[in-house]
Amino acid sequence: MSKGIIKLNASFISTGNAVGKKEFEGPLGERFDIHDTDDRFGKNTWEKAESEMQRLALNIALKKANLAFEDIDAIFAGDLLNQCAGSSYGLLGCMIPYFGIYGACSTAGEGIMLASIMATHKIFDRVVAVTSSHNCSAERQFRTPIEYGGQRTPTSQWTVTGSGAFLIGDSDAGKVKIKAGMPGRVIDKGVNDANNMGAAMAPAICDTFLRYFKESGTDPNDYDLIITGDLGYEGASILRDIMKIEGHTFGDNYTDCGILMFDQATQDTHAGGSGCGCSATVLSAYVLPEMEKGNIKRTLFVASGAMMSPDSIKQGESIPAIGHLVLFEAE
Amino acid sequence: MSKGIIKLNASFISTGNAVGKKEFEGPLGERFDIHDTDDRFGKNTWEKAESEMQRLALNIALKKANLAFEDIDAIFAGDLLNQCAGSSYGLLGCMIPYFGIYGACSTAGEGIMLASIMATHKIFDRVVAVTSSHNCSAERQFRTPIEYGGQRTPTSQWTVTGSGAFLIGDSDAGKVKIKAGMPGRVIDKGVNDANNMGAAMAPAICDTFLRYFKESGTDPNDYDLIITGDLGYEGASILRDIMKIEGHTFGDNYTDCGILMFDQATQDTHAGGSGCGCSATVLSAYVLPEMEKGNIKRTLFVASGAMMSPDSIKQGESIPAIGHLVLFEAE
Repeated sequence: MSKGIIKLNASFISTGNAVGKKEFEGPLGERFDIHDTDDRFGKNTWEKAESEMQRLALNIALKKANLAFEDIDAIFAGDLLNQCAGSSYGLLGCMIPYFGIYGACSTAGEGIMLASIMATHKIFDRVVAVTSSHNCSAERQFRTPIEYGGQRTPTSQWTVTGSGAFLIGDSDAGKVKIKAGMPGRVIDKGVNDANNMGAAMAPAICDTFLRYFKESGTDPNDYDLIITGDLGYEGASILRDIMKIEGHTFGDNYTDCGILMFDQATQDTHAGGSGCGCSATVLSAYVLPEMEKGNIKRTLFVASGAMMSPDSIKQGESIPAIGHLVLFEAE
Repeated sequence: MSKGIIKLNASFISTGNAVGKKEFEGPLGERFDIHDTDDRFGKNTWEKAESEMQRLALNIALKKANLAFEDIDAIFAGDLLNQCAGSSYGLLGCMIPYFGIYGACSTAGEGIMLASIMATHKIFDRVVAVTSSHNCSAERQFRTPIEYGGQRTPTSQWTVTGSGAFLIGDSDAGKVKIKAGMPGRVIDKGVNDANNMGAAMAPAICDTFLRYFKESGTDPNDYDLIITGDLGYEGASILRDIMKIEGHTFGDNYTDCGILMFDQATQDTHAGGSGCGCSATVLSAYVLPEMEKGNIKRTLFVASGAMMSPDSIKQGESIPAIGHLVLFEAE
């Protein structure tokens, strides 16, 4: 029988994040480290703007910890762009050993888990996980360029313009500890609507939660906060339903980063935020700071990712998804 | 100062590979586990054929070790397709915890290194690294569909149709040991010719070799075989030159998987093979079996990857590259 839960003994040294205009205008706006007023970050393409956000997020995390590039042993980075080019170009100048990862929107969870494994086992002393997404680069790559003005369906989500960087060290390095991880399995329940990522991802998230609750002997009430990456309103609602059928009722302690990011009533974001940058920025700007302040003690985070490509959808395939779990604890 | 060499204590339990028609017709043809006569692997798109190769390679590796999916703790997988869809669809049915990785053509090196870290530290008992590339899916994604009949330049390489799977366990599990790893750094020396990947990658490979030789106190003569992933004839020649300038002369013990894969004189492959599947299939079908037989004792493998996307090239950016190093030893 394969192993499930990975015991971890790491902590967050610091984090950094950068977001766009709409994210700054949302409920968490004032909490972000830096934002840009036109989402261009001084660059002439959306793709370069996305790379620039990664560079900024990394530099902010390092500055908070008073560390330089040469103090970092490795980076785990990824994004939604073809060939993960947002990361390779964004982190080009830093000359830090680099592991490219791809978990679609779950990349923040995958990166934090892998970085924490490295810190736990002292393979690296200080390691960074970075991810990003940009609304304009993602829309033209996965759906249509925003200039096209395509109609958005009620279940569609708004790809977050943002990047988050997590600087991770051993368990003594920071206040918020990373105690466990569980990698997801790729699961496809036949959803093929590229405008309903929440429905495609919910079953994979459910699979990870069920394996975790069973192996850990815990249930949803044992956590102050249970938060998924970017299921949005639609996916979070489906997850509640299928978890209940499986015997685990989520209470008010459950929410989703895509729900927290935007004000649904006023920001026209339909089913909520999504993208590699969604959970990365909400974790680094809201969840972890609240844990540092002692307002949240135990957080179960499951990063959600839809592992299709635009080509696979056009070729009639359905959408495989994955959920990577990480457990955070504050003293 | 950041850490460089990662000490490993793992071994290969088994490997599996699947290749296309042209690869079977090459010098290593008879050594591959399985090949397809029309590169379609029974599927109706090139992308699905690529996924099918991953499924086959994984199943062959498991069969050789007499193991089932449930005996495997995790998979590290990646490929060249947008959103790494070759891997997520190819490995969909196996229900093994999944880490998506992206290192362009260096993905086999990255995957073997990460899997070996997990086995060394007993985070997982048995872990698989899988990668693939397909000539027809890669050409239409990165350059032009093969039906277009585009003229190929002398420095262009031939993307290998193939997939390799590596089943990795602790140091007692197999004859060929994995003793060390060193992750590459993303380096861009300004090459922007998408038909000359070798020139773009050689400086990044050189960076990894120089850091490794310095830290380990070894030189090229200390290894029976030094092999790069897919520099091809052009890149390997550049690497020899710049390594010599840096004080390390590569002798006859240096070659490249892209050179070994095809017969340059008869197969019209110009500067040699390339792709995620190139080093994965040459390692699993040639290098590791020769090490098992005792014909090669110490192999230094540096997987080479060009981290651009077709969009970044069109937007005028140059090509960042990376080289991931892994050291193999046989008794």
